[in-house]
Amino acid sequence: MSPDTSPSTPLSWPAWSSLQARARAGVPHLRELLADPNRHTYSASAPDCGLHLDYSRQAVTDGVLAQLMALADQADVAGQREAMFRGDVINTTEQRAVLHVALRGAPGATGNDAPWGADIQAQVHTELARVLDFARAVRSGQVTSSTGEAFTDVVNIGIGGSDLGPRMATEALDALTVHATGNPCGTGPRVHYVSNPDAWALHSTLRGLDARRTLVIVASKTFTTQETMTNAASARRWLADAGMEGEAQSQHLVAITASPQRSGAAGYPAAHTFTFWDWVGGRYSVWSALGLPLALAIGPEAFADFLAGGCAMDRHFRTAPFSANLPVLMALAGVWNRNFLDCPTQLVSTYPSRLAKFAPFIQQMDMESNGKRVQKGNQPCPVGTGPIVWGGLGIDGQHAYFQLLHQGTHRVPVEFVGITAEDAPLPLAAEHHRVVNLNLRAQAQALALGRDEAATLAALKTEGRSDADAHALTAQRSFAGNVPSSTLWLDALTPHRLGALIALYEHKVFVQAAIWGINAYDQWGVELGKTMAKAMEKAGA
Amino acid sequence: MSPDTSPSTPLSWPAWSSLQARARAGVPHLRELLADPNRHTYSASAPDCGLHLDYSRQAVTDGVLAQLMALADQADVAGQREAMFRGDVINTTEQRAVLHVALRGAPGATGNDAPWGADIQAQVHTELARVLDFARAVRSGQVTSSTGEAFTDVVNIGIGGSDLGPRMATEALDALTVHATGNPCGTGPRVHYVSNPDAWALHSTLRGLDARRTLVIVASKTFTTQETMTNAASARRWLADAGMEGEAQSQHLVAITASPQRSGAAGYPAAHTFTFWDWVGGRYSVWSALGLPLALAIGPEAFADFLAGGCAMDRHFRTAPFSANLPVLMALAGVWNRNFLDCPTQLVSTYPSRLAKFAPFIQQMDMESNGKRVQKGNQPCPVGTGPIVWGGLGIDGQHAYFQLLHQGTHRVPVEFVGITAEDAPLPLAAEHHRVVNLNLRAQAQALALGRDEAATLAALKTEGRSDADAHALTAQRSFAGNVPSSTLWLDALTPHRLGALIALYEHKVFVQAAIWGINAYDQWGVELGKTMAKAMEKAGA
Repeated sequence: MSPDTSPSTPLSWPAWSSLQARARAGVPHLRELLADPNRHTYSASAPDCGLHLDYSRQAVTDGVLAQLMALADQADVAGQREAMFRGDVINTTEQRAVLHVALRGAPGATGNDAPWGADIQAQVHTELARVLDFARAVRSGQVTSSTGEAFTDVVNIGIGGSDLGPRMATEALDALTVHATGNPCGTGPRVHYVSNPDAWALHSTLRGLDARRTLVIVASKTFTTQETMTNAASARRWLADAGMEGEAQSQHLVAITASPQRSGAAGYPAAHTFTFWDWVGGRYSVWSALGLPLALAIGPEAFADFLAGGCAMDRHFRTAPFSANLPVLMALAGVWNRNFLDCPTQLVSTYPSRLAKFAPFIQQMDMESNGKRVQKGNQPCPVGTGPIVWGGLGIDGQHAYFQLLHQGTHRVPVEFVGITAEDAPLPLAAEHHRVVNLNLRAQAQALALGRDEAATLAALKTEGRSDADAHALTAQRSFAGNVPSSTLWLDALTPHRLGALIALYEHKVFVQAAIWGINAYDQWGVELGKTMAKAMEKAGA
Repeated sequence: MSPDTSPSTPLSWPAWSSLQARARAGVPHLRELLADPNRHTYSASAPDCGLHLDYSRQAVTDGVLAQLMALADQADVAGQREAMFRGDVINTTEQRAVLHVALRGAPGATGNDAPWGADIQAQVHTELARVLDFARAVRSGQVTSSTGEAFTDVVNIGIGGSDLGPRMATEALDALTVHATGNPCGTGPRVHYVSNPDAWALHSTLRGLDARRTLVIVASKTFTTQETMTNAASARRWLADAGMEGEAQSQHLVAITASPQRSGAAGYPAAHTFTFWDWVGGRYSVWSALGLPLALAIGPEAFADFLAGGCAMDRHFRTAPFSANLPVLMALAGVWNRNFLDCPTQLVSTYPSRLAKFAPFIQQMDMESNGKRVQKGNQPCPVGTGPIVWGGLGIDGQHAYFQLLHQGTHRVPVEFVGITAEDAPLPLAAEHHRVVNLNLRAQAQALALGRDEAATLAALKTEGRSDADAHALTAQRSFAGNVPSSTLWLDALTPHRLGALIALYEHKVFVQAAIWGINAYDQWGVELGKTMAKAMEKAGA
């Protein structure tokens, strides 16, 4: 097991020192930067993905940007990117390729459009066809339950990577939504997700369902995950208690796993078993068979659109110059904030309510990938790696933790996510949408500009305060501002756009790992927790 | 408006310097601290609240603890606490008392049990009786809809403090749960919460409901909150489109507000209007009329139990010596981690799945309260104030961001929350519960102990790795450990215990604010966002 030879000494790169010097010298307040009438040029688009990135409120100047681009070059981001796409063993501690990008390769792609090679391409599309056929057959009622009825409900049992991605995407795109936005998919079964082994989680889902019309999916890469196996055992008991055992029960069971021999031994039928490969990390697996619950919810055509959106972002990432490359720009802004402006966290703030689970999904993707302190060459990373990613729905945050962003003692960079056009089936939908986007824009601006003491004093007097009161309150009611943010605008929230958005973040995380010289694709910390639990179990705890 | 004269110069307190010196000198690794056979004495209980705090995994020694206690004395936490309870104007920038504790005062309390005085006590219990009577009447079908039917559904429209508290508590305690755990409450209407003004949020709730049997609650302290008014307008349009206008519509409307004249002018009937007072902050308001949706969901008796739990914690906070006082101990551990061990964030990690919204609720309570940089005396606070609070369900976190806790480049203190006894209506519930608590204990221990290189090398060899491979992987698979945590054990998740748990965190936040000398009860940062949005609206953005 030889250490990777990719460059891994950020401190020795000229761009790193230059950026340190620039950070030490200080960057003008965002109030000043935004006064430049050309500041709107700090933006970039991926038109085939319907995405526009406004980074004008990042605390960067042309000089900083130039050095960040140099940093990407000195880290050989382009070379590392191509190594991933062609299937090199970049997950060095597990000796595996990292090919979630192949899962969304265009059907029939060859050559440079399928750099992972024909074998992988064939494997992927064979299994994808099985997944889509099965989703179609369940939705049409061709595959039925043991009582000969169509499935009305699907319960997906999985945790972490086998849960968050499809759960988030289903919530974002559920059938009615997709239908209303004119996308090609009919109605499907209701899809429920259970991850937590607390019995209340499973119970609160099952209590409303009819076992005779419910399909239970058990999703686990190894098919040994204790939490998932505990929930699976109870779900099978629930089927049995409703009279479905043996052959009848198996008609209600689906396995999604990279260990089909284990699921087979546990009685999951081969025709209901869908697989993926060791080169698919859990947190990058929504594109694989683990996306089946999503395909059941939104239909196979919409699921194919979702894959096509991811593929469109892959093309953008591979072909756009770094200065107009969305994942690269977002990654570099993040490195600037994390390593040079000393911001330990990154807030992800989505404004469309259907993206309620997007921040937790990105939190998992980013922190499980880049929460590492040892470089690929086995040396401690000499600089800070992945930030603490947190967040949620922006408007709800405005009435809660945004207070700390405005007036606390931390500097918290924000990634806002909004939709330019929205069309919901309520008579007053246009007014709702106006309020949502007005708030997004106002927060980004308020965080950047703040309000200095003179402006605050004037505002207090306008409120009718006495001179004494206004002076007493000025410090309490001023805002430092200078909080950096980006805004990512989607032209609409469709399967295609969501696919592109997820892939954008995957590549952002990749670029940051490439710069820090760490392996984003193992998760030994997660494994340690499992080991400790097993040890305590053995010790009778 | 004179500045508060409470002590506000932490840096000048002897205990502060002493703690700085101790932090500089270094604290032994948790591995060493936990080797002490008496370490389990680092714990405290509030038996009347069913709560036990295990802080043995905080990076503290007897010497550190003694100085933290001295810090609480030097900050006059006890004096500040009594000032709150007796209704002094401790919210100095808004010139208001802070009396959420009065909302849960025992019925009939006088003297030292009701230090806020008889007037407040009478106001609170008069309005509480109205709330409980109304909840009882809706649940029993005595109050009906305009079509003479019982209400089957309630939609609560509010945001921030008018949403998160009752939403979190309803999810934790919903009728079936309460019923199953033997608590006194029958079945009630289904209660839904809508906070976000994105039209999809309201639509996805309303689409499943029958307007003729739905009660709409509009909750807003000022009754001007733009997000809430937007959703309220659409909900009223939905009622109108289902044929309910004028008098008929008003039978479906409830207002909860501190501005009843505004809701009255908007057509909300007086009999359906419930009020609270300017001395109740939104994030501390679940105990007030804003708890009505919770009372509708769990019943008036269970809601009274919930209040009694908060009251029991108030008694504990006021009477237990600091060294055995749960809110004080948790606050001091937080100050130690934030100000002396330089941890900018605080993770809240709940293991009962019904507490899924607890971390976001505490995030709001803590960050909106202590996200301040100016002290009560109008001077910049010379030390860091409120941490960035984040988190969620612990077991789901284990399969996601815990990776960064184990192997990233941040030190993240954790507050675990678990339940010792659990009884869910699934045949295999005991096994589920065992798995949940095994995981909680294993994570706390793994984060504290880590695994050093020698132990990792041995483990790798046990796995059957070659010497060369084992050595190559040792750095990647070792864990620094030394991550501080507390574990808070509830004896059960009942209304009473949840009330106590919330009050515990309220007082924790209070103690930290008392030490930092800041006003935890205003939220000018939230106001700035609103001002900016209005200004942009006016400018035609």
